[in-house]
Amino acid sequence: MTTGTTTIRSVQWKGDHILLLDQQKLPHKTEFIKLTTIEDVWESIHSLKVRGAPAIGITAAFGLALWAKSFKGKENFLGFYYELEEKRSYLESSRPTAVNLAWALARLLKRFSGAATVEEGQSLLIEEARAIATEDERVCRSIGEHAAGLFSHGDAVLTHCNAGGIATARYGTALAPFYISKEKGVELKVYATETRPVLQGARLTVWELMQAGIDVTLITDNMAAHTIAEKNISAIIVGADRIAANGDTANKIGTRGLAILARAFNIPFYVASPLSTIDLAIETGNEIPIEERNSEEVTHLNGVEVAAKGVKVYNPAFDVTPNEYITAIITEKGILSGNYKEALAELK
Amino acid sequence: MTTGTTTIRSVQWKGDHILLLDQQKLPHKTEFIKLTTIEDVWESIHSLKVRGAPAIGITAAFGLALWAKSFKGKENFLGFYYELEEKRSYLESSRPTAVNLAWALARLLKRFSGAATVEEGQSLLIEEARAIATEDERVCRSIGEHAAGLFSHGDAVLTHCNAGGIATARYGTALAPFYISKEKGVELKVYATETRPVLQGARLTVWELMQAGIDVTLITDNMAAHTIAEKNISAIIVGADRIAANGDTANKIGTRGLAILARAFNIPFYVASPLSTIDLAIETGNEIPIEERNSEEVTHLNGVEVAAKGVKVYNPAFDVTPNEYITAIITEKGILSGNYKEALAELK
Repeated sequence: MTTGTTTIRSVQWKGDHILLLDQQKLPHKTEFIKLTTIEDVWESIHSLKVRGAPAIGITAAFGLALWAKSFKGKENFLGFYYELEEKRSYLESSRPTAVNLAWALARLLKRFSGAATVEEGQSLLIEEARAIATEDERVCRSIGEHAAGLFSHGDAVLTHCNAGGIATARYGTALAPFYISKEKGVELKVYATETRPVLQGARLTVWELMQAGIDVTLITDNMAAHTIAEKNISAIIVGADRIAANGDTANKIGTRGLAILARAFNIPFYVASPLSTIDLAIETGNEIPIEERNSEEVTHLNGVEVAAKGVKVYNPAFDVTPNEYITAIITEKGILSGNYKEALAELK
Repeated sequence: MTTGTTTIRSVQWKGDHILLLDQQKLPHKTEFIKLTTIEDVWESIHSLKVRGAPAIGITAAFGLALWAKSFKGKENFLGFYYELEEKRSYLESSRPTAVNLAWALARLLKRFSGAATVEEGQSLLIEEARAIATEDERVCRSIGEHAAGLFSHGDAVLTHCNAGGIATARYGTALAPFYISKEKGVELKVYATETRPVLQGARLTVWELMQAGIDVTLITDNMAAHTIAEKNISAIIVGADRIAANGDTANKIGTRGLAILARAFNIPFYVASPLSTIDLAIETGNEIPIEERNSEEVTHLNGVEVAAKGVKVYNPAFDVTPNEYITAIITEKGILSGNYKEALAELK
């Protein structure tokens, strides 16, 4: 049974423009903006209108394709190539630390190397950009299908932060099973932590699940233990920022505490993640550096200071959940559990 | 070695007025207001300028004493008594559900029953009000002394919500050991959770510890696990709203999760609480009702909506920590551990 679930695509190729969901305006306004020039694309990435590594990569790829399409000098192949390289660097400068951005643009340039004319180049660049988006959507859908098999009608599942559809081409990672289940008529109850300090849960996860008509309830982060006990939560599922070769998982701050609660309440703790997030070069979580961010994220809300002035703040953006707390890692190629070191090495 | 620690008294009897710390203005303004009439006192309690059960009880008692002192008809004992009963009801109506308020006023009335003249009545009411404040301060200091013995110079200790000096006559309960240690020249590092949704940690705990020159660092609630691991936290200490006969403890939402983390990281989890908080009529935590509060506490910050509009919210104000997670309960009469049912029954 298919129920016509709405899963929002935050970046869409429209031939002569890109349609982009302005995530800065969420959750109060659902506004799609039309990007018609490469400068529009640069600005959208730079000003965080698009967030989420896969979504940023896709937007940049579409941006380069958009520029290529508008290139006028059909006979000037070398000029086209020189300018393409320039535009690639220009787009890369919109958010220099975003790995997916550089990766997506490099894929386009590699594909372009097979072209002999401007027209061929234009076609290949557009094709490759669309392929990146399609692949990401397929990967997320596949993660969602594997993960959906872990839940049954009526289950209450807790999630943290936003590993959602708007951060990817579609479906997201940790949220993908909720969309896939909904399509199949399997209704799940989702509990979303607000995810302090930046409130991705309250602002984004809750919003996108509501768009799809999925039953979602918001809690503050510290309500997790009580909610697991009182609302009969049957599992916790989160995304990942980086997974070490042994399965240790870096994700949004608060993930580790939830994994410990899952163990204490004897419910499974799942990490949903594409294989691209697994970094076999890193042996254990100890090697993953944890970014510490501005204290104002904690002390100020909506620009208003709430904490006592001058207080010292500790504001780590991520934590690392030790592999022994992770019941399974759900990838596009299947569900891994047990000895992650062997299982991950085999799949990658 | 005494270092002249400043511990703020949030309610002070000044003979012809009450000096009250306006907690509504914290942490941005430290403003003491002068209450000169019983109407001032009613309004201060009603508008939450004073919070914390013991502090409310003390303020109300001082309020009734203040009215009594100003009573003019020295010869009219019966008139004095009638009006006293009226004023007692009036003050009780300022926050009808606050148990300590009714309890403190009842103590005053009982003490008054020993009077034969207006003047005697006035003296006894003032004496009793001051006794309530003095006793509360003594109880908190005693809790702090017992608890301070559990920590050593340089220890990093995590606390939640505000079981602080401003909620009591002085010192607080969970924060008392930090003040007592400071007096003795024993420096502890405190990590305070911000305590969503109402942010008592960020607004009050951090503020009052900073006033006393105690080393305090603010974290969001979901940073607890990572902080315990990275900052070498040696114990967690919290207050209590109600303790059942078997030691199960109701306290601010989030407490239960912290107790589970303490167990996972193999560090002690302490509850600091006066004996008056122990309710032997309640056998286990299952019988303690959990108040659910307005969803706007979660969805709005500073009056601005942050979450997606119309989202369902679960907002329990408290949770119950099972006794097996509590390493010890620290009371004014000493430290209890092991079989709480026997230990509590013996002490009460």
